[in-house]
Amino acid sequence: MKSYQEMSKEELLKEKEALEAEYQKIQTMGLNLDMSRGKPSAEQLTLSEDLLDVVNSRNTLKSEDGIDVRNYGTLEGIPEARRLIGEMLDCDPDQVIIYGNSSLNIMYDQVARGELSGYMGNTPWCRLDKVKFLCPVPGYDRHFAITQEFGIEMINIPMTQNGPDMDLVEQYVNTDPAVKGIWCVPKYSNPQGVVYSDETVRRFANLKPAAPDFRIFWDNAYVVHHLYEDEQAEILNIMKECELAGNPDMVFQFCSTSKVTFPGSGIAALAASPANIADIKKRLSIQTIGHDKINQLRHVAYFKDMEGIRSHMKKHADIMRPKFEMLEELFREELASRGIGSWVSPKGGYFISLEVLPGCAKAIVDKCKQAGVVLTGAGAPFPYGRDPEDRVLRIAPTYPSMEELKQAAAVFVTIVRLASAEKLILEK
Amino acid sequence: MKSYQEMSKEELLKEKEALEAEYQKIQTMGLNLDMSRGKPSAEQLTLSEDLLDVVNSRNTLKSEDGIDVRNYGTLEGIPEARRLIGEMLDCDPDQVIIYGNSSLNIMYDQVARGELSGYMGNTPWCRLDKVKFLCPVPGYDRHFAITQEFGIEMINIPMTQNGPDMDLVEQYVNTDPAVKGIWCVPKYSNPQGVVYSDETVRRFANLKPAAPDFRIFWDNAYVVHHLYEDEQAEILNIMKECELAGNPDMVFQFCSTSKVTFPGSGIAALAASPANIADIKKRLSIQTIGHDKINQLRHVAYFKDMEGIRSHMKKHADIMRPKFEMLEELFREELASRGIGSWVSPKGGYFISLEVLPGCAKAIVDKCKQAGVVLTGAGAPFPYGRDPEDRVLRIAPTYPSMEELKQAAAVFVTIVRLASAEKLILEK
Repeated sequence: MKSYQEMSKEELLKEKEALEAEYQKIQTMGLNLDMSRGKPSAEQLTLSEDLLDVVNSRNTLKSEDGIDVRNYGTLEGIPEARRLIGEMLDCDPDQVIIYGNSSLNIMYDQVARGELSGYMGNTPWCRLDKVKFLCPVPGYDRHFAITQEFGIEMINIPMTQNGPDMDLVEQYVNTDPAVKGIWCVPKYSNPQGVVYSDETVRRFANLKPAAPDFRIFWDNAYVVHHLYEDEQAEILNIMKECELAGNPDMVFQFCSTSKVTFPGSGIAALAASPANIADIKKRLSIQTIGHDKINQLRHVAYFKDMEGIRSHMKKHADIMRPKFEMLEELFREELASRGIGSWVSPKGGYFISLEVLPGCAKAIVDKCKQAGVVLTGAGAPFPYGRDPEDRVLRIAPTYPSMEELKQAAAVFVTIVRLASAEKLILEK
Repeated sequence: MKSYQEMSKEELLKEKEALEAEYQKIQTMGLNLDMSRGKPSAEQLTLSEDLLDVVNSRNTLKSEDGIDVRNYGTLEGIPEARRLIGEMLDCDPDQVIIYGNSSLNIMYDQVARGELSGYMGNTPWCRLDKVKFLCPVPGYDRHFAITQEFGIEMINIPMTQNGPDMDLVEQYVNTDPAVKGIWCVPKYSNPQGVVYSDETVRRFANLKPAAPDFRIFWDNAYVVHHLYEDEQAEILNIMKECELAGNPDMVFQFCSTSKVTFPGSGIAALAASPANIADIKKRLSIQTIGHDKINQLRHVAYFKDMEGIRSHMKKHADIMRPKFEMLEELFREELASRGIGSWVSPKGGYFISLEVLPGCAKAIVDKCKQAGVVLTGAGAPFPYGRDPEDRVLRIAPTYPSMEELKQAAAVFVTIVRLASAEKLILEK
């Protein structure tokens, strides 16, 4: 197929005319479709419904060490839940704290504590003139919303196929004491699906931060969220690598079962070095008496161990994979073949990050909206909502049914073609 | 009976000798008892076990407005849970946000937000030289721990039989713009069980704060926690009174079902004016995508309405009341009769706050510890852990069994008598 770039102005005008006619037809269809939400589908949620039955009034409601899970206390979580999450993150259960239902909330709390209390005796950031975070882009909008909320200056770090541009990361972290953190989604990154290479993880672990309280915010959101049985990404263990490099306290790791069981009712966790855990527990003990231990028990009773989680995640993958594959095939046929769309082929996670022609992302989102197809706002995967090239679109395939997704995707590619043609015509 | 104050030095010395012999005997008994914990007993927790069965895989798992409670979202909580808590607090469901399992965590977050973001456009406290909170004493140690954590200066306000000394409260709040908050447990106060009078509530509502961002932290922890069917305290509705007084935004109200269902697995809530709710939701949306809606549904399915909560609380009262009454009778016979102990007779809540002779509280706690009976640390109900007169002891009757409590209480009164005699001998 001829790429749009190879077409003459006349050919593009003709193409545009045909696409506009199609677009007008679509607009009359009264569609109401959504590819914006990184949420499991109802079908996926149903996979976990037995979770609701495994802990009931006939159980003893004690943890393995005899704690009454119904009552107050046990700030760090029950031992069997710490062990399960420890297995998931490949770390010592003593390095894990189990929280409530939201890993985002843990990250927020950790940034808030940096601001208000400081880490391990360091100066609270609210007393400093300037605090900066590095933000690999495209990235997760809710990470950036947290740092923006606290007035932290955010610095874009371009993503490569192997993770963030580590030359830049090293340059900033190792020279600027105002750089206090970096947001990372190391496995199946949000939204690109990039898997950090071993070299990337090692370079992270071997940073020599100018700030003693610099922390890597390692959001391992998709640690077990593979799409393919035979192509499961494995990343190096950042906590072990940091230990080896003499930087044991440099990383906070986060995860949850939000997209394993129920997004509103899972368990979330933080893992870190013993010194960090002690520091965090001291602060956390002021904030709460403990999290929901019955729900912790419920999760352990349901999964038993990592093998239980793995086989459960296969069922999620079986539902999600066809949606990703359908989209990728369509994008290849309709967009890549015309030179107007590229993406990293994700092997896990929740998104496809489509790069369209520069200057087209906003126009595509607007046109889709007018046609009744909701996309994530253009710019969302960037700090301050500003995509410097206006070209990244985060596509969320999971929530709609396959039928809805097919309909939405057909509209979407038509609009990408239309906006691309319009853009190239102006340039000819 | 002759009071200790009326006894001669010789009589006291004889009394002390007898008590010392008894104390030595007690120390050999190898007791391991605890009156320190404001926790429901296992028997109380069993009352709520059916809560675990009412939501299961056979349910539809939708809220009344059709929200899938398993998935992300609904930051403010499902409508039926907001209605239930609204009924409990006598306020509009729209003025309620349902959180996770801990009202303490909500209070911490609200103070943290005052520090970091400021309320409704006011200056964040972390940018001010000095921030002060008023602390009615004796009060709840975990409240004071939060304000201490943030370096907020705490000012003791003596409690009266009708609530905090409102002359002092008015004087501070209405003249000092550094006073940003006050901690209140208005019904069955922790630890005294004081019920704020109508006049106290009205004077609160009619404060004219020097600080535009002054807030009353109204921790309605024991709103439905009555001990007596026929002596249920009712306090005026602070939110309505504040509205009437033209101060609608001056109060944050907090509550939870921690001591209604399960302390680790209840639901907690905040209620406030529409302007506060809008401000809080804006901040909260950065912190989390939503709380555990399945647990919200579980609570509504279990209780149905306030009548359900009321009849459930009667069952708690039936277990708790005999423990309170046993202690009060013993204290009357052994302590009040000798002029060495006084307290407010609590009609609800979780504690008895015993006032012993000045300078005796620490000695009593230490002696009890040596005898194997754990009490709440002396000073705990005061900011910075400092009881200026060293005379307040917080007694928590609920957690031990009746048998354990009887044993512990017998040891306790012996030790109060011993410490009181020792103290008075030194003064003769």
